[in-house]
Amino acid sequence: MANDTMKKIVSLCKRRGFVFQSSEIYGGLKACYDYGPLGVELKRNIKDAWWRDMVHRRDDIVGLDCSIIMHPDVWKASGHLAGFCDPLVDCRNCKERFRADHAPRAEAGSECIYREGGRADGKKLKGIVGPQGYTCPVCGSGDLSDERLFNLMFRTSLGPVDPMQQILNSVEELAALAPDERKQKLAGIINESAVYLRPETAQGMFVNFANVLNSSRVKPPFGIAQCGKSYRNEITTSNLTFRTCEFEQMEMEFFVKPGEDETWYEYWRSARRDWYISLGINPDRLRLRDHETSELAHYAKACSDVEYFFPFENEEGEGEWGELEGIANRTDYDLKKHAEFTGKDLSYFETETKERYVPYVIEPAAGADRATLAFLCDAYDEETLEKDDIRTVLRFHPRIAPIKAAVFPLVKRDGMPEVAEGIMKELLGEGINCFYDQAGAIGRRYRRMDEAGTPWCITVDSDTLNDKTVTVRERDSMEQKRMPIAALVPFIKEHLK
Amino acid sequence: MANDTMKKIVSLCKRRGFVFQSSEIYGGLKACYDYGPLGVELKRNIKDAWWRDMVHRRDDIVGLDCSIIMHPDVWKASGHLAGFCDPLVDCRNCKERFRADHAPRAEAGSECIYREGGRADGKKLKGIVGPQGYTCPVCGSGDLSDERLFNLMFRTSLGPVDPMQQILNSVEELAALAPDERKQKLAGIINESAVYLRPETAQGMFVNFANVLNSSRVKPPFGIAQCGKSYRNEITTSNLTFRTCEFEQMEMEFFVKPGEDETWYEYWRSARRDWYISLGINPDRLRLRDHETSELAHYAKACSDVEYFFPFENEEGEGEWGELEGIANRTDYDLKKHAEFTGKDLSYFETETKERYVPYVIEPAAGADRATLAFLCDAYDEETLEKDDIRTVLRFHPRIAPIKAAVFPLVKRDGMPEVAEGIMKELLGEGINCFYDQAGAIGRRYRRMDEAGTPWCITVDSDTLNDKTVTVRERDSMEQKRMPIAALVPFIKEHLK
Repeated sequence: MANDTMKKIVSLCKRRGFVFQSSEIYGGLKACYDYGPLGVELKRNIKDAWWRDMVHRRDDIVGLDCSIIMHPDVWKASGHLAGFCDPLVDCRNCKERFRADHAPRAEAGSECIYREGGRADGKKLKGIVGPQGYTCPVCGSGDLSDERLFNLMFRTSLGPVDPMQQILNSVEELAALAPDERKQKLAGIINESAVYLRPETAQGMFVNFANVLNSSRVKPPFGIAQCGKSYRNEITTSNLTFRTCEFEQMEMEFFVKPGEDETWYEYWRSARRDWYISLGINPDRLRLRDHETSELAHYAKACSDVEYFFPFENEEGEGEWGELEGIANRTDYDLKKHAEFTGKDLSYFETETKERYVPYVIEPAAGADRATLAFLCDAYDEETLEKDDIRTVLRFHPRIAPIKAAVFPLVKRDGMPEVAEGIMKELLGEGINCFYDQAGAIGRRYRRMDEAGTPWCITVDSDTLNDKTVTVRERDSMEQKRMPIAALVPFIKEHLK
Repeated sequence: MANDTMKKIVSLCKRRGFVFQSSEIYGGLKACYDYGPLGVELKRNIKDAWWRDMVHRRDDIVGLDCSIIMHPDVWKASGHLAGFCDPLVDCRNCKERFRADHAPRAEAGSECIYREGGRADGKKLKGIVGPQGYTCPVCGSGDLSDERLFNLMFRTSLGPVDPMQQILNSVEELAALAPDERKQKLAGIINESAVYLRPETAQGMFVNFANVLNSSRVKPPFGIAQCGKSYRNEITTSNLTFRTCEFEQMEMEFFVKPGEDETWYEYWRSARRDWYISLGINPDRLRLRDHETSELAHYAKACSDVEYFFPFENEEGEGEWGELEGIANRTDYDLKKHAEFTGKDLSYFETETKERYVPYVIEPAAGADRATLAFLCDAYDEETLEKDDIRTVLRFHPRIAPIKAAVFPLVKRDGMPEVAEGIMKELLGEGINCFYDQAGAIGRRYRRMDEAGTPWCITVDSDTLNDKTVTVRERDSMEQKRMPIAALVPFIKEHLK
């Protein structure tokens, strides 16, 4: 059944420099990846398109860039920082990680039915409550890991002294304590300097809400957008960059007057789906999946995922819906929590109505790495030309294509390389990322550019020397047309708008 | 003496949304900062200018984007990972952190003279070798901190189990051990899952050297560029974002044939200095400072710093040279070290000469946050107009200005807002970041934009309604000229090239 699409994409990614395994020469680091020369351009183009469409092309959204390490109390307020000694459990069905002491309890051995929607394909499954006597709070499964001390967040320490030194100094004191006191004492040592790598960028927008309000001339409805890395100690799978411990988010928090939240939720739900289509994603492989009430985070009023049909292998063959972005109505939960923990006023005073309110928040939260992977998978095509001639082509939208144009001299003599280099210089000068290649037969050069997803190949031949025209070969149709050199920049720029 | 320039800049940064203290509502986090709506645009523009000038406008440099968490053995090879139990010492003179057991030894109480250049101002200082009996290996100072377990790098742990759980399980076993064995046992527990936040992006380029060589059609001389966050457990000062534990780098490793390294070192040394000037930095506040031989890292053949004269306060008044970027000839040290640690071949075979060699590396390594701070300080001006009228203006180069243009209706009626909104829409559609303001007297609106560093203010007045022209007020000269609406986009784009 499977036609190994994902394997071929992974192989292309390495061969052409889209994605490498991190620290590969050291044997690699599990679920960490590096973007190669083509991958970094693809991902940058996607992030830039997001910023341009979300921040620059609108007058109601401003940007923000917060440090990844934030004050640890931020995570107490947000609920991400379960205490050091919390027993956490992983659900083997839906991959949720939860606190055992907060899980719904049921008689061990009784039957439990997984909630529909706990799996992306919406299937119902049956299970048996395990010996722990509780089930997963999200999907109701009893197929759970052992309890263990665990934190979703990566902890490190900020300060002049390594906490290991302090533990070393305290070993005998610790040994003399009763188990519970020992735990507390150790936690105390750790927590003195503990800081965390943020598990989401969103909290940066909430804690800066008042700063942005006071420094920028914004008022609800308005948004704060941020693009940056986040970290989660996730259970990772083998689907390349789909789920990684280090990942990049593109999040926007849109602050609205309570009562207007449902309208804005609907607005962003559609707008975000349409964004992927505007950059060339096949609409047939894209869907909006509304969360069921039981699936919602406790603070969320509504949530919908933009999902893409990835060519992942699974037990039923090829293809699996995976989340690209979640659009959530987070209500006034976050601002109220931070107001409560800091004692600061995080409300907004509307001068027109003399009304004071804590804004509701609509959050479209996208993953930049997942978007990059989706655009890669969506662009991947094998086209049978004639006989046994199959070409591999990445059909990227020109706006996100890593290289916009390749420039070839037909042969390495007769002044053609010089003319081609002149064209290169002109295009590079305009900030159009292009690539020069004079090695091998012209047909092979075209195919190499098909694999890189380059929309246009510009060839300088003997006619060029007379009439200053070149051949422009279009990637998808493989059609070639003649064009004056002077028309190249406007032609390419028109397609990049 | 001091005229409080830095204090005024810090205050402007918060007031107008360039830089906020991280997690400010939680009391802030030492030496961590967030970029507000204006700051994020400024920093993005600087990073984008770097990428465009280093990667897109050249055909000999490709990009890369590596994960921040890399395989821990990378840091063993690079020399960043001093063993867990190494006693580290901080030099209070030059801020170097070094291993006590590697420091040059001298008789306690003897006089030591700090090397010239150990301070940015090149002063000679005398000191006394402290009771430890060794001096700073970089500047020779005897003014040192106590020894302590310390690592420059932030350590965290990757894996399903928190190492604290394992320590807790081993407390009694640890207590029974002799001090040295105890240290080793504890280090063993920690190291099992320890990973580090990279202290520099450079190693990502070295470990991916072969991947880039095999996937991209590059050959020496060529460069690999990367922009991203790095982390160092630094001794931080109070000069805003000048020295922070979390910082963003813009690094490029340029691989050349041995023997051509000195020429390329000179090339990049000048090119990088000129880059800051091309973006508007005052050349009088910029200098290249060549490192003396004794100041060089052990692997470096030559190094030069691009320094900016910051308006920092110090004991002698205002102003201090601070490093923006270091250009180093790293020789073949890094590639050889990684080849040695991994057993992989990191050499290059030159087909023309049938010669195999390990390339030398010229590295221009810039700090994005420092560059942002330098551009902010350099742009800051207080201009006395007449009487007691002083205007604060940020004279950014248009290419890095956060907002390119502001659009004002002269009054909030007579159809002017509608025309102004139409202009906004057109500019935003072209990806020109602009700002709409209809509040307050026109003079005050101009001044607000001066403080944001916006190069042009476009005003719609009653004439606009008749002849479709607007007033364009230039930030630096404050001159106003009349221009057709249709000429605005080409006018602005011309200045952004």
